[in-house]
Amino acid sequence: MGFLFNSDAARGAIFRQIFARELPDLEFYQGRKSIDPEKVRYLLTWNVPDDVSRYRNLEVLFSIGAGVDQFVPEIIPDHVMLVRMVEDGIIRMMQEYVVLGVLALHREMLAYREQQRRGEWQDIVTPQATERRVGFLGVGMLAQAAIDRLKPFGFSLAAWSRSKKVVEGVTCFHGDDRLGSFLRGTDILVCLLPLTEQTRGLLNAKLFSLLPMGARLLHVGRGPQLDQAALIEALDSGRLAAAMLDVTDPEPLPEGHALWAHPKVMITPHIASVTQPHTAAQSVVENIRRHRAGKNPIGLVDRTLGY
Amino acid sequence: MGFLFNSDAARGAIFRQIFARELPDLEFYQGRKSIDPEKVRYLLTWNVPDDVSRYRNLEVLFSIGAGVDQFVPEIIPDHVMLVRMVEDGIIRMMQEYVVLGVLALHREMLAYREQQRRGEWQDIVTPQATERRVGFLGVGMLAQAAIDRLKPFGFSLAAWSRSKKVVEGVTCFHGDDRLGSFLRGTDILVCLLPLTEQTRGLLNAKLFSLLPMGARLLHVGRGPQLDQAALIEALDSGRLAAAMLDVTDPEPLPEGHALWAHPKVMITPHIASVTQPHTAAQSVVENIRRHRAGKNPIGLVDRTLGY
Repeated sequence: MGFLFNSDAARGAIFRQIFARELPDLEFYQGRKSIDPEKVRYLLTWNVPDDVSRYRNLEVLFSIGAGVDQFVPEIIPDHVMLVRMVEDGIIRMMQEYVVLGVLALHREMLAYREQQRRGEWQDIVTPQATERRVGFLGVGMLAQAAIDRLKPFGFSLAAWSRSKKVVEGVTCFHGDDRLGSFLRGTDILVCLLPLTEQTRGLLNAKLFSLLPMGARLLHVGRGPQLDQAALIEALDSGRLAAAMLDVTDPEPLPEGHALWAHPKVMITPHIASVTQPHTAAQSVVENIRRHRAGKNPIGLVDRTLGY
Repeated sequence: MGFLFNSDAARGAIFRQIFARELPDLEFYQGRKSIDPEKVRYLLTWNVPDDVSRYRNLEVLFSIGAGVDQFVPEIIPDHVMLVRMVEDGIIRMMQEYVVLGVLALHREMLAYREQQRRGEWQDIVTPQATERRVGFLGVGMLAQAAIDRLKPFGFSLAAWSRSKKVVEGVTCFHGDDRLGSFLRGTDILVCLLPLTEQTRGLLNAKLFSLLPMGARLLHVGRGPQLDQAALIEALDSGRLAAAMLDVTDPEPLPEGHALWAHPKVMITPHIASVTQPHTAAQSVVENIRRHRAGKNPIGLVDRTLGY
């Protein structure tokens, strides 16, 4: 019985080395073709193979990414545990990207980019961090880690989540009927929600209309959460002043799409946070040890919630 | 005997209010024309007036900015103390800007800006923060405050200064003969030096040649420290991968200057850190109290060093 690594060869080589050292008694398989499917107890993958039911002894399906929205739950047998990737590399990169994005939006870097394009030297008056309200949609592990790095700057911090959360130094809202109150007090909105049926299309014209005039969006959730046409309208009307997007729908964003050239939009190609093989392998090793000891893996997905 | 505020009216109104509350016994003058110069004991200004010798009872000359390089020392009587602005607002804004700049250079935001311009969706492999060496030229109060905010991200940190400094968690170099060693180990160079005869033109071709290939520059010192033609050459040859400049020479950077359109340069119009009137007034009040009590003001300039 073993572990099947179903992703790129470069990361696979690092996983193989770490597994050989940390879990020498576990068979390590790479590439789906040559192995006996009945021997697979653990599978690490991005997409779920169509023929996943062939792995009749599969117990845990690990996502190589922070999300599991790419998994098609219908084809995964009910008894299989789904585990999203929780590892130091992803967390550290997201901390960097969120701090970078919030500071860039706070300090008007998109407006300065435009001024540079025109060769214009003009300062823009900006509020101090203590007068800038940063609000997180989603308060999972990544958001909380990003909040830790933002706190020392003195921003006023709030967060909204579906179920009740308590985070020190952060004004926490929860539930649909508190979403409006949260949005009305948010100058820089950071979306770090998982993609579910409830969050699909959530960032739409109605939501933007509840933000203060001139609010800013940092989108590091999933592309299909954002109504891109509504975003462009909100930017053009001045409802939103700027947006930084690391995710789009579809990805890659097609050539010639209006978002590419929009002066109030900064786009990065889904690079906010990338699974780092060394720390990820260590994290999967740890989860296999937990599973063998009868404990729940870290990052276990609630299949009824989808995250 | 009183305090003469020689700067813009908007900030002056805030200073006047705070001085009335905190130092009610001190006369507050605004505008140089209508007052008796012999009554001026304290003067706050950006440029030193040509006729500064008229203020025969002047004891302390406060700069409204973090630097005093705009002061012409020859015309200031020797017994006058020069004090640079040290206040929370400047410090907090510089922390934001340096973290923003270092993260932007670390995470390839200039390359992504170019890709966006071309409508190109392509990830760029970047090292982790622990493998990125950030080096500060200058280790004064602003640099140390910025270092405090960078530390949690895990960058490898170093600093160089003229005289010996010790900063926890930072590899400190000092003196001309250690500058090369410092530069050879620096991937992201942050210049926060004061402008003096020693630092004028310091960021030149020779200095760039000592940095690793593909190093990056964040310049938040003073424009005349940088040889702009040498920077463009270093960027074009690949010696430097990117530069973010908040200061230029001259300022404003002239229309049509090659730096404006350079794809590897981000320019902001000297906005990294701006004196904030409320906190600045409080800081000057505190320094006047210290002076009256016979103590040295915070930010006192060593006139032989020029900073």
